[in-house]
Amino acid sequence: MAASPLLERLMAALRCLPGVGPKSSQRMALHLLERDRDGAHRLVESLQSALDRIGRCQRCRDLSETELCALCANPHRNPTLLCVIETPADVLAVEQATGFQGLYFVLMGHLSPLDGIGPVELGLDMLEARLDEGEIREIILATNPTVEGEATAYYIAEMARERGIRPTRIAHGVPLGGELEYVDGGTLAHAFAGRRDL
Amino acid sequence: MAASPLLERLMAALRCLPGVGPKSSQRMALHLLERDRDGAHRLVESLQSALDRIGRCQRCRDLSETELCALCANPHRNPTLLCVIETPADVLAVEQATGFQGLYFVLMGHLSPLDGIGPVELGLDMLEARLDEGEIREIILATNPTVEGEATAYYIAEMARERGIRPTRIAHGVPLGGELEYVDGGTLAHAFAGRRDL
Repeated sequence: MAASPLLERLMAALRCLPGVGPKSSQRMALHLLERDRDGAHRLVESLQSALDRIGRCQRCRDLSETELCALCANPHRNPTLLCVIETPADVLAVEQATGFQGLYFVLMGHLSPLDGIGPVELGLDMLEARLDEGEIREIILATNPTVEGEATAYYIAEMARERGIRPTRIAHGVPLGGELEYVDGGTLAHAFAGRRDL
Repeated sequence: MAASPLLERLMAALRCLPGVGPKSSQRMALHLLERDRDGAHRLVESLQSALDRIGRCQRCRDLSETELCALCANPHRNPTLLCVIETPADVLAVEQATGFQGLYFVLMGHLSPLDGIGPVELGLDMLEARLDEGEIREIILATNPTVEGEATAYYIAEMARERGIRPTRIAHGVPLGGELEYVDGGTLAHAFAGRRDL
């Protein structure tokens, strides 16, 4: 390699980004230094301030630069509906795609005892305290349709039932625009078991 | 969108990276903040020092943090061979793939009068002064095989010939491992015109 040590170090640092390997990190580093130094300065500045100031919302655990995130602080959201979800990315996806008007609780993961992730790591003690407040009527379990996501949903559903709160789970079935032929067996079985009157 | 303003700004800043659109910038921003804050700190630090300290080599115009880049400063390289090339990425590619032992001159582009890129922007006055030094015997024109790259190569070849220096052009032909059936016509014509005794 003929690259200068600082350039090498920049390429290595860029590889911490998801989906970026040796080739793209080289392309990115050279692009920033040759053609977009202004963009690179903006990137340094905004990444630094995001690191300094973005923490967790005290109520829903979502990423937030204020003690309460914009959603939790919004008085127009319905406080009787709580959507439990795995990651901040999932919150963004639900906000963009659905008309959901309730509040969120972000687990930042799913139960995974082998990795040392239990109820405390997911903030389920915080969730329990929140359910005890008595305002919530329905808890929508929107964890991923994986083994761990399902287990997490069942665990939280139990917590809700003990307090007389109705737990619901988002529907699983064939995705829109898909073809039955190419849908996996588990999904198809779910879609049949969950059929509804038309 | 429910993202916090700082998060929005970070996503926008990440979009200056080549090949990064709205979806990947969101994925990258959330990954850095949720899962790899150490990597993000390293990225800020190495990008900042690269921006502060990487400039151009005074002799070959390649990116360098010192006045002379490591290649130009290396006394073991052959100073009679000069490879003229478009970008720093091309230098890395040639260094990695070939056994070339000469020196480089990096144009940082190609002649493109319509975009206001003429001989001065490519540093051809610097190149002319260097050719006048009299040390160089052969100048290898390794610009891209595009219309602009060819025009640039012809222009520099003329400069070399005027000074009695031998200009050569890298070979164009069918790439290794390719199939003739799928090679474009221009390349195939080049490959036939440039055939050699076996």
